[in-house]
Amino acid sequence: LAGVNRNRTPRVVVIGAGFGGLWAARTLAQGNVDVLVIDRNNYHTFLALLYQVAAAELEAEDIAYPVRSIFWKHSNIDFTLAYARRIDLQNRIVVTDGESISYDYLILATGSITYSFGLPGVAENAYCLKTLEEAVALKNHIICCFEAAAREEDKAKRESLLTFVIVGGGATGVEYAGALAELIHGPLVKDYRTVDFQSARIILLEAADGLVANMPQSVRAYTLEKLQKMRVDVRLGAKVREVTSNAVLLSGQDNITTQTVVWTAGVKGEPLAELSGVATGRDGRVPVRETLQVLGQPEIYVIGDLASIKENNRVLPMVAQVAIQSGVSAAQNILRQINAQAPQPFRYHDRGSMITIGRKSAGVAIGARTYTGFVAWVIWLVIHLFNLIGFRNRMMVLINWAWDYLLYERAVRFVFPSEMPSLSKLSSCVRVGGLDKEPPKNSQ
Amino acid sequence: LAGVNRNRTPRVVVIGAGFGGLWAARTLAQGNVDVLVIDRNNYHTFLALLYQVAAAELEAEDIAYPVRSIFWKHSNIDFTLAYARRIDLQNRIVVTDGESISYDYLILATGSITYSFGLPGVAENAYCLKTLEEAVALKNHIICCFEAAAREEDKAKRESLLTFVIVGGGATGVEYAGALAELIHGPLVKDYRTVDFQSARIILLEAADGLVANMPQSVRAYTLEKLQKMRVDVRLGAKVREVTSNAVLLSGQDNITTQTVVWTAGVKGEPLAELSGVATGRDGRVPVRETLQVLGQPEIYVIGDLASIKENNRVLPMVAQVAIQSGVSAAQNILRQINAQAPQPFRYHDRGSMITIGRKSAGVAIGARTYTGFVAWVIWLVIHLFNLIGFRNRMMVLINWAWDYLLYERAVRFVFPSEMPSLSKLSSCVRVGGLDKEPPKNSQ
Repeated sequence: LAGVNRNRTPRVVVIGAGFGGLWAARTLAQGNVDVLVIDRNNYHTFLALLYQVAAAELEAEDIAYPVRSIFWKHSNIDFTLAYARRIDLQNRIVVTDGESISYDYLILATGSITYSFGLPGVAENAYCLKTLEEAVALKNHIICCFEAAAREEDKAKRESLLTFVIVGGGATGVEYAGALAELIHGPLVKDYRTVDFQSARIILLEAADGLVANMPQSVRAYTLEKLQKMRVDVRLGAKVREVTSNAVLLSGQDNITTQTVVWTAGVKGEPLAELSGVATGRDGRVPVRETLQVLGQPEIYVIGDLASIKENNRVLPMVAQVAIQSGVSAAQNILRQINAQAPQPFRYHDRGSMITIGRKSAGVAIGARTYTGFVAWVIWLVIHLFNLIGFRNRMMVLINWAWDYLLYERAVRFVFPSEMPSLSKLSSCVRVGGLDKEPPKNSQ
Repeated sequence: LAGVNRNRTPRVVVIGAGFGGLWAARTLAQGNVDVLVIDRNNYHTFLALLYQVAAAELEAEDIAYPVRSIFWKHSNIDFTLAYARRIDLQNRIVVTDGESISYDYLILATGSITYSFGLPGVAENAYCLKTLEEAVALKNHIICCFEAAAREEDKAKRESLLTFVIVGGGATGVEYAGALAELIHGPLVKDYRTVDFQSARIILLEAADGLVANMPQSVRAYTLEKLQKMRVDVRLGAKVREVTSNAVLLSGQDNITTQTVVWTAGVKGEPLAELSGVATGRDGRVPVRETLQVLGQPEIYVIGDLASIKENNRVLPMVAQVAIQSGVSAAQNILRQINAQAPQPFRYHDRGSMITIGRKSAGVAIGARTYTGFVAWVIWLVIHLFNLIGFRNRMMVLINWAWDYLLYERAVRFVFPSEMPSLSKLSSCVRVGGLDKEPPKNSQ
């Protein structure tokens, strides 16, 4: 590569400590490179279980792991807690809130953010489920709705407080609807003796004619049936046209009065690439070459949710397996480039997909095989436990699940802090520490 | 009691779900009364281990327990999440952010808050350690100081970031100094390879000539020696005159440049009683009769930190044992009043006191006996585990301690949300839900 000074160790900067970024950094650690990982949080978040935090099933700490601990054993990996604001492609510099960081190679792994499709009121009035802060804020809100309902004398207001609308019948919407149903019709019944739980409603809105579109038909049918048994009011073909502070407005259907709208209907690429002048599609994702390099920028790789990777004429989905495999592949290609070898095309190995609806109910698709019910749920449990980083996190999650699944109790029902910390006293930390409130949901 | 309608069940309102309030409510549950517990949080906080949350040793959830769960089995105890703003003594009404609540009997258990003695800059620039939010904010700040130091090029600024000043050599100051020393000279060394830990300093300032004034001499000497061995710079006779945004100013001594001042030097009674026209001492505590009743208000009892209870010409200390025992006693007296019996004087049974400095080091005083070192530490561990509410919390704390004490690792080093949630979308919840940011540290 032109421009790399061959007299010093090449520096690879990885932006984002999600699955893609972590696996890329680990792979790079085996080569003769200096690796710097940048993230706005000092922890990695296991996003697959985020909905359980929002349903008071797990603690936020259970699905987070300190990034620095992950890299203890790798002396050539360093970490910086910072917001990446812009990439200066010309000068190969990442501009952050703090220092500017130069790179020889760059891996963009900033992931995806919630997308409202421009529908009015969504950004202002709906809860999202893409970051740990959002999950904790949503959990707090759910508990507060019950606290308020317990003392609300007006019937209409009480029903509005007890109506929970989830928009989007993909994996996140389905899994959250199930977990919320188990929370509300389980432990909360014991907590709020004066509340009439007959009027508590969970409504799942999906614009298409079915749930979890990417799953096989048997899993889709099972999911719908199971959710309905769990008292979730699933409405297919329901098109949201606006979200207000106390209602969801639908096209051609009655409005739903509610204090709680959870928006899981859309995601798009995190905007750093676009803001830096990298070409992106309408969904904000970066079309990459089959080597995962950006067109015209052979020193920049894009992986995970942010990458629009075409294989057999379809774009790979935004899932952890794609992030992990593309992260490893991009790292290997950079090591090849450094050794004056040609980067290799990325090949995705689909290991199947799965969804959980609730206690003892899940759907799993591996190759041509599908499983539903208890067996699928056990597979789901084991795979998710196995993929959590850190033995301690696995143990904590196992304990919380045991409490929930065996004792039908959830221990995490606190109204706890939910916002990003604002440590205004320490300006240097505010600047670099990911503590700035201004930038919106950035799922680096 | 005049004014109590004998045709209906008397209503006892308990403000505060600390140890005092909980034990009072539990005792009342055995009588023919309706009990309503009010707190601004929906959880009870085990304050004795708060410093461990601030030292990234325990998770916030480990020392919190949902109030409603505590009272599941008691059908005559209800709970309301609300700020008590004022008591209308004349009409026997508690005015909250939400509804107004009438009472026949009232137990004030709002505890104590941090007190700056009016020293300039303390309220604006120092961290406190009296609530779960404060503990999480302090932990976040400590981690941020290291993140900032890792990239700070200026030596003086770096030293300022790595200087941690704790004001107050009482139990909280001593325990936090020890826990912070173990955090900084333990797990953080592995996390921040580029930071020079020789320049990391923990300074404990105490205005008097010794630490933990209430403990026997042998424990005091042990505490001082142990802290010094743990590289804590203990400065006795150090009188703070001002705290600025980047320094502690001392009387007759050099200023200390620092980004971190933890104020544990003063507490006073929580202001609800004073704001309602109940007579209080200069320390904001309410002098009570030996039956724990307020002078001239036989239907109002004050317990715990807020009560100034004189016994043998000394005022009882602000400790959990006094809160628990006075809570039980006040509740029994109310049940006596309802049965037309005379309230009995409160007698405190001192079960001893203890302090922990760090791993395998503590001091315990029970009657005339004192223990220091490993044995004292084991006693401390067992008693604190035993006093945590909930089997799950005990298990979680045990696991976190095992990680810390056996593996010398702390798993909780996240910069996580620290503020009170601001769920502005749900105004009814903001109003009653303890989510209002306006009132200052209220340790109900």
